[in-house]
Formats: sequence, C-alpha cells, structure tokens
Amino acid sequence: MTIPIRILGLDPGLRKTGWGIVVSEGTKLSFVACGCIESDEKRPLAERLMQLHEGIAGVIASFAPDEAAVEETFVNRDPQSALKLGQARGIALVVPAIAGLSVGEYAANLVKKTVVGVGHADKKQVQAMIRVLLPKAEAKSADAADALAVAICHAQHRGIRTLAAQMRAVS
Amino acid sequence: MTIPIRILGLDPGLRKTGWGIVVSEGTKLSFVACGCIESDEKRPLAERLMQLHEGIAGVIASFAPDEAAVEETFVNRDPQSALKLGQARGIALVVPAIAGLSVGEYAANLVKKTVVGVGHADKKQVQAMIRVLLPKAEAKSADAADALAVAICHAQHRGIRTLAAQMRAVS
Repeated sequence: MTIPIRILGLDPGLRKTGWGIVVSEGTKLSFVACGCIESDEKRPLAERLMQLHEGIAGVIASFAPDEAAVEETFVNRDPQSALKLGQARGIALVVPAIAGLSVGEYAANLVKKTVVGVGHADKKQVQAMIRVLLPKAEAKSADAADALAVAICHAQHRGIRTLAAQMRAVS
Repeated sequence: MTIPIRILGLDPGLRKTGWGIVVSEGTKLSFVACGCIESDEKRPLAERLMQLHEGIAGVIASFAPDEAAVEETFVNRDPQSALKLGQARGIALVVPAIAGLSVGEYAANLVKKTVVGVGHADKKQVQAMIRVLLPKAEAKSADAADALAVAICHAQHRGIRTLAAQMRAVS
C-alpha cells in the first residue's frame, strides 16, 4: 500500500507566481488544483511580495499539501532581473517552510526533461504534456502549467528516492 | 512637538542580515538596539530563509518599530549571487510589510552619502560614523552598523518629507 502524497509545485515570479497541487500515489498522479498569484505592479515592492506571501499561504491553507517543490528558474545574464526573481523566489521557498513542509528545488531543465522528455522544451510543449499527464487539469496560464510540471517532477524524483530506500531495506 | 518614530533598518544577506533600531525625534536620533541574524549554511535554502524570516519577525515583536527601511544592496555582475541576495532581500522586505510597517528602500550609495558624506565610503568609515552619530550603539558587526546606517538614512529622508509636507500645509 502506498500513501497518497499531496504536492505543491511553485513557479516563482514577481509579477506572476504559478502554483499547482497534485496527488502522487505510487505511480499514479492526479490533479487537485492550480492557478496563478499575481502582484499589483503599481504597489511598492514590499507590498507586492506580501501579496505573493499571502497568496501562497492561502493555497497551503486551502489544499493542505504534504510537501512543496520550487523551480530553480533559469537565471539570465542580467543581475537586476536575477535580483528581482530572487526576491519572489525567496517568498516561494519560505512560505511552505514556515508551514512545516519540506521544500524541494528542481532546475528548470530537469523539470522539462521529466515532464516532456527533453530539457529544452518550450512552454507550449510543457502545457501540452500537462494535458496528457493530468487530463483533468485546466492550466489556463503557462505559469500554472509550469507549477504543475514542478509538482510532477517532485513526485517522480521523490518516488525514485522512496523506491531506492525500500530496496535498501529489503536487501 | 514632534512624535518619536522607531525605525527598523535592515541590511539583507543570506548568510547574515544586519538589523538596527533607532528612534528619531525631530532632529534627534537615539540608539535602541542592533544585531545580526545568521542563517545556518548547512541547512537547505528554504530553512535558511525561514531562519531569517523568524529572526526579523522576532526583532519586530521585541522592539515594535513604526517603520522599516531596507538597503538596496549593490548588485555585482554575477547573476547567481544577485539571485541569492534577492532571496534574502525578499524576506527582509516582506516581514515588516506583513507586520503592517511601511518599508522604505534606499540605495547603498545614498545610505553612505547620508551617514558618511560620500557615496563610496567603505564599511570601516560607516562603522566610525555610527559611533559618532549613535555613541551608545555597540555595533560589533559591519552588518549591524550598515543596518543602523539604513535606519538613519530613513530618519533623515522621512524628516525632509515631513518638513516639506508641513511647509506646504503652512503656505
């Protein structure tokens, strides 16, 4: 018997942070919910980060995930955008940790490779594969689809870890 | 009569986040407390950010500041360190906002110019000026001294804003 695990995936961004919840039970994956938390560009930075903070805390309160996974978003060459992204990413990492969840981090390439099969898949390919893997998901935005992809990536990799631990226990 | 304002200054960093509390009353400045919140380098990133989150929340709970100010730390050319700094900075901005404080942001050069007189002052010059401006301060670390400098910068600039508002009201 395998215990179902509820996973929160997050694709952080200052303007939009995608989130997705899936349940992983053995090799079975099922969709729970997904969406996008937006921050108001007209507000000061601290308030925008608070909007993300409250939004993620609200998702955790509503769906009670067991574990969380955050995408290690690709950092481009511009240090200013890296700083901006880092600020949103800090919130995405800290809110689940405060709620007592373990937080996995997965490189964007690994997420794409796990879900699509290739590390350089584009956003449309990720969305298409989400429709295949989670037929009930209505990921309207690319950010929500990316967040579901991170959750799936975590489900796969935690499964491999659990299996390895079980095999070690048997042998 | 001027109302004393308690200001929390923060100098964010993933390894060490400096904090300092000053009271500004008209043109008078006085020292309340300062210190440094450290995160455990051996722990996962999400937990380290949680240590900063809890540390800053603890300072706010202990000293009940009215307003907060965060240094816009200099971003060097390396996007990876900018991302790391951004994560810590996101926490420094969001925790006071959650506590209901307004959060000012000041460029590192403006902080140095306000406190030392020149924008390119080094850490030792900042520490020396903190000893002059706040004789009771025992800023043992450069991070705590930098945090006090941000708080002083906010005190000066909010004073100018208040004065301008008063002059507009009189005229």
